[in-house]
Amino acid sequence: MMEWERHDLLDLEELSKEEIELILTTAKSFKEVSTREVKKVPALRGKTVVMLFFEPSTRTRISFELAAKRLSADTLNISSQGSSLVKGESILDTAKNIEAMNVDMIVVRHTSAGVPKVLADALGPSVINAGDGCRAHPTQALLDIFTMKERLGRIEGLNVGIVGDILHSRVARSNIWGLTKLGAKVTLCGPSTLMPIGIEQLGVRVTYDLNDVLKNCDVVMVLRLQKERQQEKFLPSIREYAKMFGINQEKLQTASKDILIMHPGPTNRGVELSAEVADGPHSVILEQVTNGVAIRMAVLYLLLGTKKDGAEE
Amino acid sequence: MMEWERHDLLDLEELSKEEIELILTTAKSFKEVSTREVKKVPALRGKTVVMLFFEPSTRTRISFELAAKRLSADTLNISSQGSSLVKGESILDTAKNIEAMNVDMIVVRHTSAGVPKVLADALGPSVINAGDGCRAHPTQALLDIFTMKERLGRIEGLNVGIVGDILHSRVARSNIWGLTKLGAKVTLCGPSTLMPIGIEQLGVRVTYDLNDVLKNCDVVMVLRLQKERQQEKFLPSIREYAKMFGINQEKLQTASKDILIMHPGPTNRGVELSAEVADGPHSVILEQVTNGVAIRMAVLYLLLGTKKDGAEE
Amino acid sequence: MMEWERHDLLDLEELSKEEIELILTTAKSFKEVSTREVKKVPALRGKTVVMLFFEPSTRTRISFELAAKRLSADTLNISSQGSSLVKGESILDTAKNIEAMNVDMIVVRHTSAGVPKVLADALGPSVINAGDGCRAHPTQALLDIFTMKERLGRIEGLNVGIVGDILHSRVARSNIWGLTKLGAKVTLCGPSTLMPIGIEQLGVRVTYDLNDVLKNCDVVMVLRLQKERQQEKFLPSIREYAKMFGINQEKLQTASKDILIMHPGPTNRGVELSAEVADGPHSVILEQVTNGVAIRMAVLYLLLGTKKDGAEE
Repeated sequence: MMEWERHDLLDLEELSKEEIELILTTAKSFKEVSTREVKKVPALRGKTVVMLFFEPSTRTRISFELAAKRLSADTLNISSQGSSLVKGESILDTAKNIEAMNVDMIVVRHTSAGVPKVLADALGPSVINAGDGCRAHPTQALLDIFTMKERLGRIEGLNVGIVGDILHSRVARSNIWGLTKLGAKVTLCGPSTLMPIGIEQLGVRVTYDLNDVLKNCDVVMVLRLQKERQQEKFLPSIREYAKMFGINQEKLQTASKDILIMHPGPTNRGVELSAEVADGPHSVILEQVTNGVAIRMAVLYLLLGTKKDGAEE
Repeated sequence: MMEWERHDLLDLEELSKEEIELILTTAKSFKEVSTREVKKVPALRGKTVVMLFFEPSTRTRISFELAAKRLSADTLNISSQGSSLVKGESILDTAKNIEAMNVDMIVVRHTSAGVPKVLADALGPSVINAGDGCRAHPTQALLDIFTMKERLGRIEGLNVGIVGDILHSRVARSNIWGLTKLGAKVTLCGPSTLMPIGIEQLGVRVTYDLNDVLKNCDVVMVLRLQKERQQEKFLPSIREYAKMFGINQEKLQTASKDILIMHPGPTNRGVELSAEVADGPHSVILEQVTNGVAIRMAVLYLLLGTKKDGAEE
Repeated sequence: MMEWERHDLLDLEELSKEEIELILTTAKSFKEVSTREVKKVPALRGKTVVMLFFEPSTRTRISFELAAKRLSADTLNISSQGSSLVKGESILDTAKNIEAMNVDMIVVRHTSAGVPKVLADALGPSVINAGDGCRAHPTQALLDIFTMKERLGRIEGLNVGIVGDILHSRVARSNIWGLTKLGAKVTLCGPSTLMPIGIEQLGVRVTYDLNDVLKNCDVVMVLRLQKERQQEKFLPSIREYAKMFGINQEKLQTASKDILIMHPGPTNRGVELSAEVADGPHSVILEQVTNGVAIRMAVLYLLLGTKKDGAEE
């Protein structure tokens, strides 16, 4: 098997097929740890992992925090609300201060695309992108791909639909990079106002007809609708959106009986998914959450085994 | 000795006398751990305990957190303020997401009565009620009972007075269940507007005369007065309340010289208790806090040793 | 070498030269721990360290938290915002409740001078002052002195300038005590409205001419300007302040080529320091941050090895 050499995880765009597969294989072996009586391995004992969240996210934060703790790392939470570290300082100043405390890894979320890259370029500790603006959310895409592969046995040749606000979705963008690298066929679907112009250049197909997706896909990934988009005039109304792009039991009739329904959470029940579908037999939403911890354990483990280029051993 | 079989702790109402006694005995042996040089035992190493607080409470939260850490468990704090996990999701959705991360125990506090029961019915991890609305606060009642027993050698036959806003008090309700099961005689006292109609059916006596309580009780548990109750018209004035039901040195003259004064904290000095009494020789308020950690260690330990009915080993 | 006997750390004012030197020596040996692969020693396993912050401070809080974790202590964060422990209680009540949970150490920050002393007098656990009002911030001064000594080999005979808002600076006050005890010559510089009357009695020199400081000092410690001071009429304008007392590359021409520039952070770039100087070759700002963890490990370690006067072993 290949050896892992990368020091930061910024997006799936930069990873090779082999690197993605190594993360998936590593996650598979870590998934078992969380089902043990003693959910802990000593792999990262004495390492310090900092969660630096400039945008609130309980779900992703606790998934990373649990992953780090189950690897025996020490964790530290810093959120920008009420943080004097952050006020009156540039993000880079803040990060350089954290680096100076000899931490090993910084997990960063920020509303602006590119912030994790800026930190990775400037800092010695490993940087993991836990979501930057509308750009990327690589560990979410990895857990999505892990879940598909675990359920369906392969990614190559799968038909995967992504439905919703593609324009603003870092989850969609990271999944497109990952899925196409592994040989899946990706179809995007959503209101035309929320579909990025020229997105086909990434090797995906675009449709505005949900039925086309439901009929032809093995997996449908449903995105969370940010209700603010209506105020921003991207949408005529939430109700109209739900009618056109929301998935309920009735629309699901036309789909394959083995179709998987995925969602990065939290779901707006009654908008993009009916409660029946979210909790129904096709939904693997909670498996995604379970797999998220395993993927993050794998990423923390692989990255912390590497050194910055040129750093002494 | 009996074996513990229960998977969740929702209230003392459902516990048998033997179960309560087993918790008290277990707490006694854990109390010693917190006085050691190394305050830590490996009992729950590799277990994950989540504090899910929808209502703020530093006091109870840190007591549970310390208890978990002294048993070597990993802890995770989730509060509803600023939690994206919580926004736009039902409580059950939130809890199911946490469950999906393979946690072992959820300690929950919520302003609505019944929330811990809903979670316990739906989830695999053990659920501990850390206070739900005006309904129950079982670990508080357990630490109160532990403190009385440690000080007075028995619960059977004790006269215990509970003074204050009985109507809104989950502490009072849980203590009534626990104390009467163990054979104490409970007398309730407070303004008639704050006394639940028909409460005598729980096997308690009601009086509106504080002097009656002070004269006849071995223990007086004083409840915190929520100052909002005046705006809600339950009370003519705080000053009037203090005059009628507040305990000061002068009123204590009529009491037994061995009377114990308890309070679940935080105290409103000068309202329900004078500073002199709160810090005086009869007060065991800080012992209650010390015992709270021991009780919570016992509860975490006993519950985490059990499996959900029907779950495989 | 002398033995450490003190139970609390309130300020450098009360420490002897030998005590300060023992902390510096101990920190030197702990500094190496943070550069290991496994950044952890078992020295404080099973001890509980509480961070009780009534004034927000991410920087100092995480430095203490990392120090405690690298010594294997359990940590607990309590901030006054949203803390029910704190509301309706005196600070002493809050602290006595924390003490009752058998914690070993309370690291306290408060906007009012003297709060750490009140707690230390009343409580059994060790108390560390992490900043009280305008009075003292001993661990900051210790890390500043450690950094000077590491860089320049000695404190005795050094010329140290402190520039800025001396009046409101606990950092300045603690440094004055520590530096003069160790034989440094301290010069204070800043607007006359922000210079305490009679401060020369502490054995320092006062000047209002930044050039005098830059020309004659081995080290210049630049204080953060609180922008509120302008509203409070201490300053004509921020711009005026920057022109008179801010340090930029040009003004630095007159300084010794080995001068060290220090700052307790976070810096207001363009006000008290230009970005060029803050990131330039004279700046040791990030080394100060690194040394802060080592100093706090040393302080936690030394204090937790002691007992309160009269306490049994």
